[in-house]
Amino acid sequence: MPRDHSQQGFIRRLGAGLLAGALSVGTALAQESPWLRPAAVPAPADNQPTATRIELGKKLFFDPRLSGSNWISCATCHNPALGWSDGLPTAIGDGMKVLERNTPTILNTAYNRFQFWDGRARTLEEQAIKPIIAEVEMNQDMDELIEELKAIPGYVALFEAAYPGEGITADTIAKAIASFERTIVSTESPFDRWQKGEENAVSDAVKRGFELFQGKARCVVCHQGFNFTDDGFHNVGLKGDKDPGRYKLVKVKVLKHAFKTPTLRDVELTWPYMHDGRYQTLEEVVEHYSRGGDTKVVDPNIRPLGLSKQEVADLVAFLKSLTGDRRPIEVPELP
Amino acid sequence: MPRDHSQQGFIRRLGAGLLAGALSVGTALAQESPWLRPAAVPAPADNQPTATRIELGKKLFFDPRLSGSNWISCATCHNPALGWSDGLPTAIGDGMKVLERNTPTILNTAYNRFQFWDGRARTLEEQAIKPIIAEVEMNQDMDELIEELKAIPGYVALFEAAYPGEGITADTIAKAIASFERTIVSTESPFDRWQKGEENAVSDAVKRGFELFQGKARCVVCHQGFNFTDDGFHNVGLKGDKDPGRYKLVKVKVLKHAFKTPTLRDVELTWPYMHDGRYQTLEEVVEHYSRGGDTKVVDPNIRPLGLSKQEVADLVAFLKSLTGDRRPIEVPELP
Repeated sequence: MPRDHSQQGFIRRLGAGLLAGALSVGTALAQESPWLRPAAVPAPADNQPTATRIELGKKLFFDPRLSGSNWISCATCHNPALGWSDGLPTAIGDGMKVLERNTPTILNTAYNRFQFWDGRARTLEEQAIKPIIAEVEMNQDMDELIEELKAIPGYVALFEAAYPGEGITADTIAKAIASFERTIVSTESPFDRWQKGEENAVSDAVKRGFELFQGKARCVVCHQGFNFTDDGFHNVGLKGDKDPGRYKLVKVKVLKHAFKTPTLRDVELTWPYMHDGRYQTLEEVVEHYSRGGDTKVVDPNIRPLGLSKQEVADLVAFLKSLTGDRRPIEVPELP
Repeated sequence: MPRDHSQQGFIRRLGAGLLAGALSVGTALAQESPWLRPAAVPAPADNQPTATRIELGKKLFFDPRLSGSNWISCATCHNPALGWSDGLPTAIGDGMKVLERNTPTILNTAYNRFQFWDGRARTLEEQAIKPIIAEVEMNQDMDELIEELKAIPGYVALFEAAYPGEGITADTIAKAIASFERTIVSTESPFDRWQKGEENAVSDAVKRGFELFQGKARCVVCHQGFNFTDDGFHNVGLKGDKDPGRYKLVKVKVLKHAFKTPTLRDVELTWPYMHDGRYQTLEEVVEHYSRGGDTKVVDPNIRPLGLSKQEVADLVAFLKSLTGDRRPIEVPELP
């Protein structure tokens, strides 16, 4: 078990969260704020980012030839026009079959300790290949893909420039895509400007919302730190949920119907919400937590919060203050 | 019949083409070259382009909510990463059913007298709606789409800014998309720089290819003017072609299996070729014409040309000189 999922763990982390919150509410502490981005985006030693790796990865990310149908690219579902997600309750895959889980955003996956809703991959390199070869997603035979790419002179040159002597392999495909994904990180938001000391960067509603976030609403128990996630898995009491979630991989009772805590950065753009996309709006999400979820769960933090209408609105205002400045994404030209 | 499709017409136009060619080969005539872009992109009086119309149209063009599945956008098939086409022999539509015709590029459709391979629409406004509502393409009920868009405040504001007082209707949706499409026009290519007098903008192979294009290879008969099309329909002798093409709309024998002459601007980027995407490379296309097609056709210009290997290569070099400078396309953020 990589994290402490016990009840005591939650309470311990709540305490830490509330402390961190108390330090940062009202008086911003410039670079010391625990809510600001760490200086560097982490990357593995054997895949340090370079301009050519990122460029290659971007082309691969946007290239529909990475699917068996040659019609679906990573960007089809992780669409930059829709917050690097797809706006659908649950994803659509090969043959346009509707799948079971909501498409997670690519944003800040560079910082994830786990990838996918159930954490079945750790690194972006490990993650990148899985949707390509999954029959229900992009349904691409990897050996065929490698042959396809080898037949495109532009790609041969790009791979050689990015990974000299390594050739076109599942490994270099994954590394290049991961390198691009590590550039998809959140940009400065009104919330960040406030944390850096700009008092007028956000409204009073946002400030009240942030206080609720760290206090009465207990959001901070799971949504901690710059990326607003504890990198853990939680059952948040979704009614009728048939999906075992993390439990499928780790047979611990508390992980039944538990899913990875998503980032809240740019959360305004990544509707609908929850692992099955059941809520269209952030108001619905906050109300879900306010009523303590819809099923009995082990987690003591999922319990009625009794938020007023104003408090719900303040929390939503705060969540929307996490939307980063727009950073233009240019469509690559494919070789 | 908007054009003269008779044999005499072809010969007349060949004469004109050869004359125009003679004027422009070798000595470039600056702005007088018939191969250079006309000053303005044409637009209908009731839909003159404005920045807000173009911005709205771009968002609609990239928005998968314009399909019944909410997963397919105009840009899925008219993909800017692939020359505003999809790289597939024939298009894929709703349910990922493979369709019968190659996805035409959006490039320079602003200049078309006819839209679609069979010319079943005249204006871009008329064209834009058809793939949205076609069951086999985007399969979107128009009334439902209008309701969907009306429920998105960002769109309501954008439509009001673009078409004040007109509301969200099939008409304003079409007008906005058409306004955006009119911005997707070819950029300056090495060929254009040569035509403007820059002698070293192209290789000798390109120059020889352009001479063949206007002479021995007879390409200019159909591929005329700045946009390299006569806006007409021709049967070019594709073996086993079951598609009636223009004949379905206009019952004239010469139009059996006749399809619209596509632009050659950026043709390097819009593989595969022909209305059914049967050829992957420009070499194959040129060889098709060199052998006079694969079936007997009425058109006297489709006949064996006896091009040498070098001549085929020169023609392909010329065609590639029509690839315009890359113009960055930014992914819009959707409301």
